[in-house]
Amino acid sequence: MTVFQATISAPVNIACVKYWGKRDTKLILPTNSSLSVTLDQDHLRSTTTSRADSAFERDRLWLNGHEEEIKAGGRMATCIAEMKRLRKEEVEDKQPNEPKISTYHIHIASFNNFPTAAGLASSASGLAALISSLAQLYQLPVSPTKLSIIARQGSGSACRSLYGGFVAWEMGSSPDGSDSYAVQVAPESHWPYIHALICVVSDDKKGTSSTSGMQRTVETSTLLQHRIKDVVPQRMRDISKAIRERDFDTFARITMADSNQFHAVALDTEPPIFYMNDVSRSIIALIVEYNRISLAKGGSYKAAYTYDAGPNAVIYAPKANIKEIVQLIIKYFPQKEDSFKDVFDLFDGADIASQGALVQGFNENVAKKFEVGAVKSLIHTRVGDGPRALDPKEALLGDDGFPKSLAA
Amino acid sequence: MTVFQATISAPVNIACVKYWGKRDTKLILPTNSSLSVTLDQDHLRSTTTSRADSAFERDRLWLNGHEEEIKAGGRMATCIAEMKRLRKEEVEDKQPNEPKISTYHIHIASFNNFPTAAGLASSASGLAALISSLAQLYQLPVSPTKLSIIARQGSGSACRSLYGGFVAWEMGSSPDGSDSYAVQVAPESHWPYIHALICVVSDDKKGTSSTSGMQRTVETSTLLQHRIKDVVPQRMRDISKAIRERDFDTFARITMADSNQFHAVALDTEPPIFYMNDVSRSIIALIVEYNRISLAKGGSYKAAYTYDAGPNAVIYAPKANIKEIVQLIIKYFPQKEDSFKDVFDLFDGADIASQGALVQGFNENVAKKFEVGAVKSLIHTRVGDGPRALDPKEALLGDDGFPKSLAA
Repeated sequence: MTVFQATISAPVNIACVKYWGKRDTKLILPTNSSLSVTLDQDHLRSTTTSRADSAFERDRLWLNGHEEEIKAGGRMATCIAEMKRLRKEEVEDKQPNEPKISTYHIHIASFNNFPTAAGLASSASGLAALISSLAQLYQLPVSPTKLSIIARQGSGSACRSLYGGFVAWEMGSSPDGSDSYAVQVAPESHWPYIHALICVVSDDKKGTSSTSGMQRTVETSTLLQHRIKDVVPQRMRDISKAIRERDFDTFARITMADSNQFHAVALDTEPPIFYMNDVSRSIIALIVEYNRISLAKGGSYKAAYTYDAGPNAVIYAPKANIKEIVQLIIKYFPQKEDSFKDVFDLFDGADIASQGALVQGFNENVAKKFEVGAVKSLIHTRVGDGPRALDPKEALLGDDGFPKSLAA
Repeated sequence: MTVFQATISAPVNIACVKYWGKRDTKLILPTNSSLSVTLDQDHLRSTTTSRADSAFERDRLWLNGHEEEIKAGGRMATCIAEMKRLRKEEVEDKQPNEPKISTYHIHIASFNNFPTAAGLASSASGLAALISSLAQLYQLPVSPTKLSIIARQGSGSACRSLYGGFVAWEMGSSPDGSDSYAVQVAPESHWPYIHALICVVSDDKKGTSSTSGMQRTVETSTLLQHRIKDVVPQRMRDISKAIRERDFDTFARITMADSNQFHAVALDTEPPIFYMNDVSRSIIALIVEYNRISLAKGGSYKAAYTYDAGPNAVIYAPKANIKEIVQLIIKYFPQKEDSFKDVFDLFDGADIASQGALVQGFNENVAKKFEVGAVKSLIHTRVGDGPRALDPKEALLGDDGFPKSLAA
């Protein structure tokens, strides 16, 4: 008996020009274009196995080993329905010999290899893995553009996780969303030494969800419209050019300015939305000072910070600077013994706690030293590839079509 | 022998529509109009005694008992020269019998009754007291408008401290600054039950000075121009109308929105400027929740927060709500025994530490409880009058023309 099953992993992406605001909340059409870097799946990924079987009684979904309801009319249901429709129209109707698996129910198991506590948006990688696994399951002869449009309707920024490298989500102008999808600006091989350091920051309160937060900004911020119309289009052109030319100075300037501006329009919301805390602000001060020293000597930008809808910092930098940046972070954010284990390799296994150091000329007073645990962990990764088809033996569903481990 | 001396006190003002950006840094012409509430001098004031004497050897200035240099060409020197010129042209040249005291050197002693550590801008009240005392010393027959223009050149927002009540600083359009001055929107007697609670917040780092910070915003923020052109003019009209109509809802909404937007454009600056910290953000969360409960029941706004270039909160509220707000602050910011002594009267001298309380329905989780000292003190005051001429026996200069106490 043929098993209809596919297993795919998909990457996380972190935006340099931020998506914040929908012009259509049902189709998830954004108020401005955005651009992100896809991070390496060797470090961060969502893995999804999808299976269609005539014996299944209903569509079911397990996330990290726990079953989640697929709400009728919800975004997940919309994506699944759309993929089944494509299977029928593009495959089964045109090639009558193909099995009619669009009529089968499906089981989906998905797993994120990073803890939810890391505060990294898992919906983008998760949705991208889901759509990619269904596309393979259904052997769809459709373009990545088409898949990107469907993923977008599941979770806006998921459309960018369908590509590796540097990815733009073109906002489009059509009311039906047919021209609102992701395109690759450059593959990861074009600029492979762009690394990323994620500083996982401790937070004692639950922030505003990005879905509700961005709509409050659309409704109440008087600055957002200006950002949308007059600021972002130019930044999209400039950062795309910077990526093509491997111009880190421009890339860094725009990335930091756009992170600042996203948080500025969040603050300009009624009531105001804060995602960064004192730890986030201190990491900004460190990166600003680190760059200042280099620029004062006629050098280049050394690093760029960016913050999504939470306090975690993502620092983009050329590979050559990562060790210095980690030393800087260790200097201000003392660590428990093993909490920075992801960066052991940078120091050949030496004791991390003793590795704090400032580059020459660094003004130590730009930030205060924090207590242990203010930065909970560091994740060191780099620009990476798009969704990967995995070997069947890596499937998350067992022979019985149920998750191999319900408590993974 | 006649003593030529005058002693004046002048008030602090805290803006509801913020001044942030100069179009002319020498004349101090702002990029937008602003509006403030003058605070009662019974609580916060700068007192200044000015004296002209032919025996004085040079112009001298003492601030809080310590001599400060009057830098040639500096703002202080510009203000003093301008006042001497007016004395000569408007008084001495026109009435030859008047004493030629414009040719005498002057001694000035100034004292702020609030600690510098309170982080309240003392330059506005200090400059207003200086200009007012010189105007009285010189018996100038000039309008408050004219004095406002001179005070503006000493410290922009000082022009607003020349009036009591609710005061607008009209930005004007003339390159020479002749139409950039303060006007009273309404006197304190129009809406006397508007009270203010200043939460003095502990800060462990020196922030960016407002003078350098606002120019960096002018040079690098892409959002500021939009604020200047498209947002502030409407807010000035609306809040002026709200004050005239004693419409606290509109007053509160605009005050909070404009504080948010000022900090938003500071964040949109390169590198970004942060004045609020986690304590500031938590106080915002408390006020938002406090208002939310009232609005949800069909009631009115109960309070409005505003933040200047530092972490301190100023909360405007009708007098009737002040006690509840203090109880809210005490609940989240536990106090040392005597640090809230300024609000003892609200509780008839009862133990402050035990007075923390939430209004019914308040969601306690909108902020965490802070450690003792995060809010260092509370100052309870209200809308107040303009500069006051003081009795000669309150003079800060002794018979010898030198400060009575050099270490006041």
